[in-house]
Amino acid sequence: MGNLLVAQSGGPTTAINATLAGVIQGAQQSVKIGAIYGGLHGIQGVMQRQLVDLGKIFAAEEELACLKTTPAALLGSCRYKLPAPGTDDSVYQTITEVLREYDISAFVYIGGNDSMDTVDKLSAYFTQNGIDIAVMGAPKTIDNDLCETDHTPGFGSAAKYVATTFAELARDCHVYRLPSVTVVEVMGRDAGWLTASAALACHADKGPDYIYLPERPFDEQVFLHNLAQPLVLHKPVVVAVSEGVRTADGRYLGEQSGSGTDAFGHSQLAGVGQYLENQIAKAYGCKVRSVQLNLMQRCAAHLASATDLNEACALGATAATAAISGVSGQMARIRRLQNNPYAVCYETIPVQMVANKVKQVPQSWITPDGTGVTDKMVEYLLPLVQGEVYPVLKNGLPSFAPMLY
Amino acid sequence: MGNLLVAQSGGPTTAINATLAGVIQGAQQSVKIGAIYGGLHGIQGVMQRQLVDLGKIFAAEEELACLKTTPAALLGSCRYKLPAPGTDDSVYQTITEVLREYDISAFVYIGGNDSMDTVDKLSAYFTQNGIDIAVMGAPKTIDNDLCETDHTPGFGSAAKYVATTFAELARDCHVYRLPSVTVVEVMGRDAGWLTASAALACHADKGPDYIYLPERPFDEQVFLHNLAQPLVLHKPVVVAVSEGVRTADGRYLGEQSGSGTDAFGHSQLAGVGQYLENQIAKAYGCKVRSVQLNLMQRCAAHLASATDLNEACALGATAATAAISGVSGQMARIRRLQNNPYAVCYETIPVQMVANKVKQVPQSWITPDGTGVTDKMVEYLLPLVQGEVYPVLKNGLPSFAPMLY
Repeated sequence: MGNLLVAQSGGPTTAINATLAGVIQGAQQSVKIGAIYGGLHGIQGVMQRQLVDLGKIFAAEEELACLKTTPAALLGSCRYKLPAPGTDDSVYQTITEVLREYDISAFVYIGGNDSMDTVDKLSAYFTQNGIDIAVMGAPKTIDNDLCETDHTPGFGSAAKYVATTFAELARDCHVYRLPSVTVVEVMGRDAGWLTASAALACHADKGPDYIYLPERPFDEQVFLHNLAQPLVLHKPVVVAVSEGVRTADGRYLGEQSGSGTDAFGHSQLAGVGQYLENQIAKAYGCKVRSVQLNLMQRCAAHLASATDLNEACALGATAATAAISGVSGQMARIRRLQNNPYAVCYETIPVQMVANKVKQVPQSWITPDGTGVTDKMVEYLLPLVQGEVYPVLKNGLPSFAPMLY
Repeated sequence: MGNLLVAQSGGPTTAINATLAGVIQGAQQSVKIGAIYGGLHGIQGVMQRQLVDLGKIFAAEEELACLKTTPAALLGSCRYKLPAPGTDDSVYQTITEVLREYDISAFVYIGGNDSMDTVDKLSAYFTQNGIDIAVMGAPKTIDNDLCETDHTPGFGSAAKYVATTFAELARDCHVYRLPSVTVVEVMGRDAGWLTASAALACHADKGPDYIYLPERPFDEQVFLHNLAQPLVLHKPVVVAVSEGVRTADGRYLGEQSGSGTDAFGHSQLAGVGQYLENQIAKAYGCKVRSVQLNLMQRCAAHLASATDLNEACALGATAATAAISGVSGQMARIRRLQNNPYAVCYETIPVQMVANKVKQVPQSWITPDGTGVTDKMVEYLLPLVQGEVYPVLKNGLPSFAPMLY
C-alpha cells in the first residue's frame, strides 16, 4: 500500500483534466493506493513539495465530472527539462526525497513529447538506483504529434474546434461580394494534424480553399499564384496555414518575428498569418485579413469532443492502473482497431519509443499539389470529433472545477 | 396583397439569420403577403435584381429552425451608403423599379447603424414620391451600439462567446507560474459593450484582470504601471481591451497600423493588442502574448445565446408585421421591462432616432479607475447570455442552411 502522485506538464489542452480525472478514478478503484496527491506546476512543483490531496478534493462523482470538462491544467504546468542522467543527480535526489516523504509508489505524468522525456529519465533513474516507484506517462497534446499512439488526447477536441470554427469563418467570409483573402493560422510547429482538421469543415459545409501543412515545403510564389484565379473571379478565399510551415531551405515563415527559443530549444514562432497577410496585400492590394486561432484552439472546453474526453479519461485510468501494478517507464496509448464502427483499445508501451520524436502527417495523406488533404485524412479525423460534452453551465456561463493554486 | 422583400446588410452576426427567420415567419402568417423574396448582398443586390424566393426555400419548419442557428448572413451583405436625397435620384429610381417589378409592398432591411440610414432615406423617398412601399428596419450588431433599443440582436451571442472565451483563456493563462501578460483584443470601434462582457467571465469563474473600453481615454503609462504589481508578484495577467480605445487626444491606439477608411468613412483599425504586446515587452521584457477574438466573436454560432436568437427572431417578425400593415421608416426595438425575471417587449420607433448615432457605455457603469465595469453592467449583461441553442449537428460537425449564392 502506497500513495499515488499525478502531475501535468506542457501546454494545456481541453482534455488534460479529463486524463487527470481518469487517473484519480483509476487510483480510487485500487485497494493498493491510499492517498492520491496532485503535484502543482509539474515536476518543478513536486520538487518544491507543492502537493494537494486530490482524493479529498474530488471525492464526489459530480466534482470529477466537472473536472473532466474544465479546460487548461488544473494542477498547473511547467516547461522544465530534467538534466541528462549523470550530469546533475541532485535534481533526481530531490524528487526521490519528496516522493519518499509522501510515500509515493506510483507517479503518473500527463504531458506531451517533452514530458515523456521526463518519464523516461525519471523511471530509468529509479530503476538504476533500486527505487521502488513506478513512473507512467499519459499523453496529451493538441498537436497529435506523439509517435506510437493512434492519436493524442486533446487533439480531437482541438480538431472539433478548428473544423467548427472554419465552417463558421467560411460562412462569415463569403457574405461580401468582394475579392478577399482570409488567412487562418493554426497551431502545430512540426506536424500539420490540427491544420489538416480544417478539412472537416469542407466535409460538413464550407471550409478553407487551401490547406498548407509543415510537412510540405512552402513556396511563397506558388502560394500567391494559387490566389490569382479566385481573386479574378471576385471570390472570397479562405486559407488554412500551419504556424510551422517552412520554406524549402528549412526556414520557418514566421521566423523573422519570433523571439528566441523555449526551454526545450524549440523556436518560438509568431505571425505566419500576419506575414502572409502582408505579402498578399503587396501582391494583390485586395481585402486581406489574418486570423490566429491562438489559445482558443487548445482551451475551448465548450466545444469538446466527447470521444476525446472519454478517451483522455480512459488513458489516465490505464496509466494509473499500470503504475499501481508496478509498470514503469511506459506510456498509455490508443490503438485504433477499426473505423466503422470506430473502436479503440488502450495499451502501454515503452516511453523511449515516444520521447523526443515527432509523428508527422504521412505524405500520401496530402494532395499532390500540397494544398489539401486526402480522403484518408478525413476518414482518420472524423471519428475523433464525434459527440459533445458541454461544460457545467450556471447562468449561461461555464462553471469549472475550483482553482487549486 | 403584395409581396415582401427582405435583405441583410453590414457585418454578419450569429443572430442575423434568426432575424431573417423571424421575418419569413411573420410574412408567412400574413394573408396580405404572397411571395417572400430575399435580396442577395443587400440593397446593392436588390438594384441588380438578385432576388430569391425564400417562401419556397424555407417552406418547412425544420429548414427555418436550421436557418435560425446558421451564422453570418445567408442572403449575403453589402456596405453601401445610399446617396443623399436629391443628389442622385437614379439609385432610388432603380430600387423603385425593381421593387415594383416584384410587386413588393413591404421591405425589411436587417442591419446596424448604417443600414438604418438606408431605411431612413428609402422610406423618406417613397413617402415623398407617393410610392406605396413600407420600409422597416430590423436591428443587428454585435457592437450593441444602436440607440433607442435596450440591446441589439447578435450582441447577446457575441457577449456569451466573449465571456465563455475569457473564462477559458484565463484558466489557460494561469497554468504557468510565470509573470506573463495576455492582451485580448475585442471588437467595438466606438462602444465598449462587447469588451465589457468579458466581465461576465469574472462573475462566473476567472476573467480579465483589467478591462479597457473606448469610453475612457486610454493612458499608456497608466496601463503599463497597472501591470507592475502583479508582474512583481509573478502573477499571470489577462487584459481585455477594445479595438476602439483612444488616447486623450482622440487618436486610436491601433491607428498607425490601420489602412484607410471604409465606405462609411470609419477608420479601419488593426492591431491594438499587437501594439500593446510590443509596449509591454519593451517595458517589462516578460512573457507577453496578444490574442484577437477576431471574426470568431461574431460568427460562433455553436455558442449562441438562446435569449439572443429568440429575440432576434421576434424582432424580425415585429418588423415584418409592421411593414405589412403599412408602417414605414421605423425600426423594431427591444424594450426591457424588468430584470428579475427578465422580460422584454417589442416595439417600433422612427428610424431617425437611431440612424447614424452611437450608444456608448454610460460612464457610471465603468469603475472610477477605468479598468473595469460595475455591478450595473453585469446586471444588464447577464440576462442576454442566458440559454443555449446549438446548431444542427451531423457527424459531430455543424450543418447550416444551404448557401444561396
